[in-house]
Amino acid sequence: MKNSYPYPLLKPPSFAWDRSAAPAEPKVSEWIETLEPGCAQQTDWPTVDVTILGVPLSRSSISASAASENPDALRRAWKYFTTYNLDYDVDLSELRVVDLGDVRQHVTDISRCHRNIREAMHAMRVHHPHALPMMMGGDHSITAMLVKGYKDAHPGERIGILQLDTHFDLRDLADNGPSNGTPIRNLIESGTIKGENVHNIGLHGFFNARSLKAYADEAKVRYTTLREARRRGVAQTVREALQTLGRQVDTIYLTVDMDVLDISCGPGVPASTPGGMTSAELFDAVFEAGLCPKVKAMDLVCLDPFKDRGEATVKTAVHVMLSFLTGYRMRDK
Amino acid sequence: MKNSYPYPLLKPPSFAWDRSAAPAEPKVSEWIETLEPGCAQQTDWPTVDVTILGVPLSRSSISASAASENPDALRRAWKYFTTYNLDYDVDLSELRVVDLGDVRQHVTDISRCHRNIREAMHAMRVHHPHALPMMMGGDHSITAMLVKGYKDAHPGERIGILQLDTHFDLRDLADNGPSNGTPIRNLIESGTIKGENVHNIGLHGFFNARSLKAYADEAKVRYTTLREARRRGVAQTVREALQTLGRQVDTIYLTVDMDVLDISCGPGVPASTPGGMTSAELFDAVFEAGLCPKVKAMDLVCLDPFKDRGEATVKTAVHVMLSFLTGYRMRDK
Amino acid sequence: MKNSYPYPLLKPPSFAWDRSAAPAEPKVSEWIETLEPGCAQQTDWPTVDVTILGVPLSRSSISASAASENPDALRRAWKYFTTYNLDYDVDLSELRVVDLGDVRQHVTDISRCHRNIREAMHAMRVHHPHALPMMMGGDHSITAMLVKGYKDAHPGERIGILQLDTHFDLRDLADNGPSNGTPIRNLIESGTIKGENVHNIGLHGFFNARSLKAYADEAKVRYTTLREARRRGVAQTVREALQTLGRQVDTIYLTVDMDVLDISCGPGVPASTPGGMTSAELFDAVFEAGLCPKVKAMDLVCLDPFKDRGEATVKTAVHVMLSFLTGYRMRDK
Amino acid sequence: MKNSYPYPLLKPPSFAWDRSAAPAEPKVSEWIETLEPGCAQQTDWPTVDVTILGVPLSRSSISASAASENPDALRRAWKYFTTYNLDYDVDLSELRVVDLGDVRQHVTDISRCHRNIREAMHAMRVHHPHALPMMMGGDHSITAMLVKGYKDAHPGERIGILQLDTHFDLRDLADNGPSNGTPIRNLIESGTIKGENVHNIGLHGFFNARSLKAYADEAKVRYTTLREARRRGVAQTVREALQTLGRQVDTIYLTVDMDVLDISCGPGVPASTPGGMTSAELFDAVFEAGLCPKVKAMDLVCLDPFKDRGEATVKTAVHVMLSFLTGYRMRDK
Amino acid sequence: MKNSYPYPLLKPPSFAWDRSAAPAEPKVSEWIETLEPGCAQQTDWPTVDVTILGVPLSRSSISASAASENPDALRRAWKYFTTYNLDYDVDLSELRVVDLGDVRQHVTDISRCHRNIREAMHAMRVHHPHALPMMMGGDHSITAMLVKGYKDAHPGERIGILQLDTHFDLRDLADNGPSNGTPIRNLIESGTIKGENVHNIGLHGFFNARSLKAYADEAKVRYTTLREARRRGVAQTVREALQTLGRQVDTIYLTVDMDVLDISCGPGVPASTPGGMTSAELFDAVFEAGLCPKVKAMDLVCLDPFKDRGEATVKTAVHVMLSFLTGYRMRDK
Amino acid sequence: MKNSYPYPLLKPPSFAWDRSAAPAEPKVSEWIETLEPGCAQQTDWPTVDVTILGVPLSRSSISASAASENPDALRRAWKYFTTYNLDYDVDLSELRVVDLGDVRQHVTDISRCHRNIREAMHAMRVHHPHALPMMMGGDHSITAMLVKGYKDAHPGERIGILQLDTHFDLRDLADNGPSNGTPIRNLIESGTIKGENVHNIGLHGFFNARSLKAYADEAKVRYTTLREARRRGVAQTVREALQTLGRQVDTIYLTVDMDVLDISCGPGVPASTPGGMTSAELFDAVFEAGLCPKVKAMDLVCLDPFKDRGEATVKTAVHVMLSFLTGYRMRDK
Repeated sequence: MKNSYPYPLLKPPSFAWDRSAAPAEPKVSEWIETLEPGCAQQTDWPTVDVTILGVPLSRSSISASAASENPDALRRAWKYFTTYNLDYDVDLSELRVVDLGDVRQHVTDISRCHRNIREAMHAMRVHHPHALPMMMGGDHSITAMLVKGYKDAHPGERIGILQLDTHFDLRDLADNGPSNGTPIRNLIESGTIKGENVHNIGLHGFFNARSLKAYADEAKVRYTTLREARRRGVAQTVREALQTLGRQVDTIYLTVDMDVLDISCGPGVPASTPGGMTSAELFDAVFEAGLCPKVKAMDLVCLDPFKDRGEATVKTAVHVMLSFLTGYRMRDK
Repeated sequence: MKNSYPYPLLKPPSFAWDRSAAPAEPKVSEWIETLEPGCAQQTDWPTVDVTILGVPLSRSSISASAASENPDALRRAWKYFTTYNLDYDVDLSELRVVDLGDVRQHVTDISRCHRNIREAMHAMRVHHPHALPMMMGGDHSITAMLVKGYKDAHPGERIGILQLDTHFDLRDLADNGPSNGTPIRNLIESGTIKGENVHNIGLHGFFNARSLKAYADEAKVRYTTLREARRRGVAQTVREALQTLGRQVDTIYLTVDMDVLDISCGPGVPASTPGGMTSAELFDAVFEAGLCPKVKAMDLVCLDPFKDRGEATVKTAVHVMLSFLTGYRMRDK
Repeated sequence: MKNSYPYPLLKPPSFAWDRSAAPAEPKVSEWIETLEPGCAQQTDWPTVDVTILGVPLSRSSISASAASENPDALRRAWKYFTTYNLDYDVDLSELRVVDLGDVRQHVTDISRCHRNIREAMHAMRVHHPHALPMMMGGDHSITAMLVKGYKDAHPGERIGILQLDTHFDLRDLADNGPSNGTPIRNLIESGTIKGENVHNIGLHGFFNARSLKAYADEAKVRYTTLREARRRGVAQTVREALQTLGRQVDTIYLTVDMDVLDISCGPGVPASTPGGMTSAELFDAVFEAGLCPKVKAMDLVCLDPFKDRGEATVKTAVHVMLSFLTGYRMRDK
Repeated sequence: MKNSYPYPLLKPPSFAWDRSAAPAEPKVSEWIETLEPGCAQQTDWPTVDVTILGVPLSRSSISASAASENPDALRRAWKYFTTYNLDYDVDLSELRVVDLGDVRQHVTDISRCHRNIREAMHAMRVHHPHALPMMMGGDHSITAMLVKGYKDAHPGERIGILQLDTHFDLRDLADNGPSNGTPIRNLIESGTIKGENVHNIGLHGFFNARSLKAYADEAKVRYTTLREARRRGVAQTVREALQTLGRQVDTIYLTVDMDVLDISCGPGVPASTPGGMTSAELFDAVFEAGLCPKVKAMDLVCLDPFKDRGEATVKTAVHVMLSFLTGYRMRDK
Repeated sequence: MKNSYPYPLLKPPSFAWDRSAAPAEPKVSEWIETLEPGCAQQTDWPTVDVTILGVPLSRSSISASAASENPDALRRAWKYFTTYNLDYDVDLSELRVVDLGDVRQHVTDISRCHRNIREAMHAMRVHHPHALPMMMGGDHSITAMLVKGYKDAHPGERIGILQLDTHFDLRDLADNGPSNGTPIRNLIESGTIKGENVHNIGLHGFFNARSLKAYADEAKVRYTTLREARRRGVAQTVREALQTLGRQVDTIYLTVDMDVLDISCGPGVPASTPGGMTSAELFDAVFEAGLCPKVKAMDLVCLDPFKDRGEATVKTAVHVMLSFLTGYRMRDK
Repeated sequence: MKNSYPYPLLKPPSFAWDRSAAPAEPKVSEWIETLEPGCAQQTDWPTVDVTILGVPLSRSSISASAASENPDALRRAWKYFTTYNLDYDVDLSELRVVDLGDVRQHVTDISRCHRNIREAMHAMRVHHPHALPMMMGGDHSITAMLVKGYKDAHPGERIGILQLDTHFDLRDLADNGPSNGTPIRNLIESGTIKGENVHNIGLHGFFNARSLKAYADEAKVRYTTLREARRRGVAQTVREALQTLGRQVDTIYLTVDMDVLDISCGPGVPASTPGGMTSAELFDAVFEAGLCPKVKAMDLVCLDPFKDRGEATVKTAVHVMLSFLTGYRMRDK
């Protein structure tokens, strides 16, 4: 077919990745496979290492958010990255990664959106139990649905959560329903996880009410403030948190709220704050999580590309996902 | 109390309007009264000419929208305007206008938001039947709720709609519920209004599917494209549309979708397009509507202040409301 | 295949257009077909009405320009438009339009880029003689190459040019080679076209040297300033220019330099100026050109999406192409 | 010296205009001569047609303004313009124009700034009585000082003012001193000019208090709203205003407040408004003023380049000055 | 009154803080009390811990600055913060803080502005001797006036200054009056403070003339460059500086020039520079100052919200004030 | 001449530096001398310490880049800096620095541009062998030309390169010619330098293909990732690299690709990335290079001022050059 392509001088538009070429400098955009509806093929699913899922829901965000536009923004930014991590001499192209597309959303029925997300996660675990799922949000409300969907597929597993976040996300669901301020409380109160199996790293400053800390203490939710994590080393803190969680649970779910970043590094989040993590700290943190064999799923949420500047936050988010995969590639198996 | 204010050199923050002074150059921000919860007083409601209501809902928007931030953005921009319209030598400060605040919204239950809006409109008509209601959206889904609330309070009235919009807003509710693409169809299919009592002025270009035009024709919805309106004169077109509607209904509800503006004049709308109205044309159109005695309510929707540039669209929206009030002040009564 | 798609809840990323669905509201992005290398098929070429070609070259621009990014920017903006033009009740989806992708460019050899463009145009005319070619630049230097490529394929045809431009583009090639300031002179001096077969509409203000006007007069290049065109009506001026050109040539090539727009309507051009055309005037001008049976090719150049604001110029450019196709669809054949 | 310049491959930085070359396409930046302190020369002053003066004062602005940065912003934008006006086939390079630099300002003593401006204007008139003075503000407070300086040099002349402005600028000096809201009142109350010798064209909307209109009527200040001017034709309105003023005074001073522009055309002004002039209307207006032999000075004020977008307002301001000079060049003498 | 509020579905505009509710998550905007002129009440002043004063003057800035808009920008940003500092487990709502509004300014008389500021500070100290004053500038010229006002009220006290700044602010007042480059020299030369009682931390790079360092050395002004402070630890450096100053004076006045921040953390300052402090370093520095019992007043200056990006600098400034108050709350008393 | 300057109240436009004044606070803009064509003088070249050369070429950049605008952007930003480095108590004004202007470029012939650059560098070395050359790019392709030009003038010298860069710049010239991805490979393959005499510090993340690392290893190019450099200390790493290089070569050429910066510190580069150097690290690195007597030339490339935000990257680039000169001034000679 390629030979019959009539114009040797032509190339496809840059957003239609040309995977037929095997370039000397493979881009992430050329490496990650997409399930395109027009020409889907019988994929050899058991060879897939990682599945990527977009979750374009941000109607459930407390503050106005265009995080629904994030999955496509990340996809468009894949072209800026090679598959090769020079820091660790690791080439991710040895992994097979498939982008499954987005979970369908409804415009005015948020409950239905949430059900779709839960069911899509469940289906993904059932169809591809061997592939690591990575989800691109969306606002943080989706984490509750994703973890529930995971639990639906693995009802016997004890699940823990490593949360990198400026906020507790422990607000009361009675106030405004399952918004992006509630996912951890949602999971605890629904019995999906236990409070002591959550560890939040990155909290800082004046962005949580005292009542939420009281709830955290009551529910035995673990947390390390960024100030304390820096004192001990961010990577070291993550390592220790994973070790402790790893002794308590079967599966650790990593959730990265991009608002954990300092506003200078992550301008494109709805609730940006000064005093947060640097990009380098966040890359180290997720790399550590990637190394840990019990970490079996990851999501990244609350990135609003309309608020971003020069794609700084979007590029950082892609780097976060690739840094996690670097750890995953180096993981002892 | 004022005398005991300890610092004669001080003045309040600029966003706490000082209405005690009677300045020679009254600003709109000083003229419009706010119902402040901390120091509300027994208002003499029968003397109120206009009530303003914020409707900060944009979760129901098809495209990502921060139109929920619009009511407060408009309020902050009132300070740029005097109450005096030099073009017509009319001083709006002769009217008494009260800002009632915003309709309470829920974060994850859009149906409840819509119910609240309908009930607030009903309450406003019941409590202040003599005051003209002006509503600041929010996305266009609110118009269906506002007109239904109006109808609830005035069940016997025949209601017509003058719509200034780039879109028909006649999408099928079966697809995605009562989103911002559906309000006119919602009102027709619920029996609130009749298709022939709607007149849309401002449609243009490639922003409506052929199927929506077919529905419009089927439902006898009237419309004049911007191209045609310019040929006949925008003000003249509005005048004629009002005359025709006026013969058919008791009340005309004016709804202004800010996306009717050309993108150069209205950059701050979620679905901005080239080829739309100029600000001057829109001011003339709403002035005409203000003059017409049957126009008894007005809303303004789909302005996303996060997308705006230099407050251009926000200032234009305030000017639209004031231009309408100029006509209202000059109206034969 | 579609049936085996594992997740009914999923949909493809929004930039991977799902043409399998036949939506009630077809978007331009779903209508225009793309030759994707991964799954190209034996296209039934004789049924193709229009071929689109991206020409991502802007190294040849005098001022710094990212017009090379324009073809993909336009493609991404197709999703904002339906195929239906309400102003003329014309549905473009009755035409079959294929996007061939981009002409390959070289990073450091501009001559080779120019040769590729000329050869691609020649190949396109040879392979698809019945399809109307529409080219998305790139800077204006490409027009000389495209017209030469056209002439290579149709050596016997007399070619004229309708140019909508703030500039003459008649600079001396001896100064800086075939830059974006030279295409018309390039075509005249190479004997490809005659000066009297060029008509430029839209010149205004202080953006051309007196020496270029002297050259234009000497070479008998026709032109109408925007001021004069407005006096007679822009559409009427275009109509008359096409009639005159039509008597002299076999083929009229329409070239639209987006810098013909006023800076308020077209902020995203390298040499933006105040005092230019409005979007509405430009839409009318290209619609007229679309109607004229002798207009057999069109390009659109000098749009720098990095300079654009809120995609205003990009959306306007898509609208220009669709307005031209509206005329083309309504053309007497 | 030039021959000994060691590097034939070098050219000076682009902001050091190279006037030694006589290019085929002279730029305004190469044409206007600068009095550079390092290498000033004995200028042949009687041959100078126009003197340009920067007045970088905006501390006296009511709203926060960086109009002090405007003179240099305009100078940097000269490079975008040729000296040739194609619309009228006039080459301004036949005029000799000298940029005298800026009036020295003081950081904390606004009175001293104002005195300096008045004295500089006086000195300019005394040293170069035959040259037309063009002043680049600064905020509008400077106009009062410039006209007083003019009057100091020509005490016997009756001076009138043609004002293109969204505002009356008739505020009471007792409130906040000689701010940018007061220049016309300042001139009237100081006896420098008479109210009936002022004509303001461009007023519109809700941007003047009723009390200012009352003062204007009391002081017999003439004005035409933009709405009225458009009805009669902006150029025609200006022409008639100049004829009337011309019968009453010896000298007409043209003052252009850039906030007369619509916000879509002039985003870079401190008090931008919707509903103002288009760029094309403003160019026509000042061209008419240029034609009138009694117009003997011009200023342009209230342009804040920090607020500007893509240099749109700055480019428009340069075009305003060049359009005025086009009329001046064509003036009957 | 609250009960009679007619619409249970309504809430006040978000900028009219609803303090009647005692929310579980108190925002800073709900906590800080405002002296509103319309409904001022007999405040129980002795219970007030902190008074906040806006000083909206930036006409006295050397470079163009809209720091006059800063006080209101900070107030609007209070809503992004809770009163609870998680890092130290301190809830500021245990303090009573009253916002007194702004010092009245004059448009064209900077001396009068300065006098008003000095008198307002004096009045504040006299009326509320037990409350800690926090001032929101404005440009740095105000610090000289504020310290003089403080001295007027406490003539016997020896006052020292802890300055966090990129600049010495020791320019000669003879050059341009009491501009924002002069406050420390102003205080020294007026005898208000002694040079050895000033300690500046944060100086770096190429932003001070050698002559200013010479003056500093001559006047015995203390300083630690940022490079040196980082070597010893920023918090440690501040602690030591406070100890030394504390031995020499009765009162230490903390002045924070926001330009001490690196441009990546503080884009919204008139003289932004690379190489400055991070937000985290600044928070630590002011927290230390808050802890020190001799620190009895604080100001924050030179933040231009018009230059800011995504409110990054504004949010950082609010965090600076809250971090200082955290230390103050934890202070040994 | 100065005495005859007619207006004592005037000062020259701010971009025409007034060097006649000997201010107490000399700005870099007043210190660096410019070879102005209009009034060039017989310069005493042997007293010149440093020559600055602009190289405004970015047509050879792989991604769209306006780095051609960088030299003038840096020049305009000189006014923000004094000549005095407070950190080291060094005043650069003791050096004599001359800005020679820009190398002439051609619009469409990149080879000719490259030849011009090489010849200009050669001429500069021949005419001013005692002056240190500092070059302001332009894209990174110029480094190959500049080093070759240096080699042409000093054929016997062994040249090494200290490269601060996120990328290897070792792409194959066969692919796209001497683009900005190739300069180091270009120099190695042309025999100008040896691979082992290159040391790259700053590489990080996913921005280099594995094949480039393979080439680097094969060619014995040295490199230290940023992660590793931080572990050992950036300054220390640079010091050691210089010592090693210094033992191997006669001359070390420092090339700074501004994309080595983290995107939060350097938003204005075509290929900005998260995870790069902070400004402070970069200042330290170049200061170390300045100290090293074998470093005899420096360039700074790949800064696109059109992409910059608030001149952050431009100011950082000026600071880089001044930090290097600080080291140079302190160098043992």
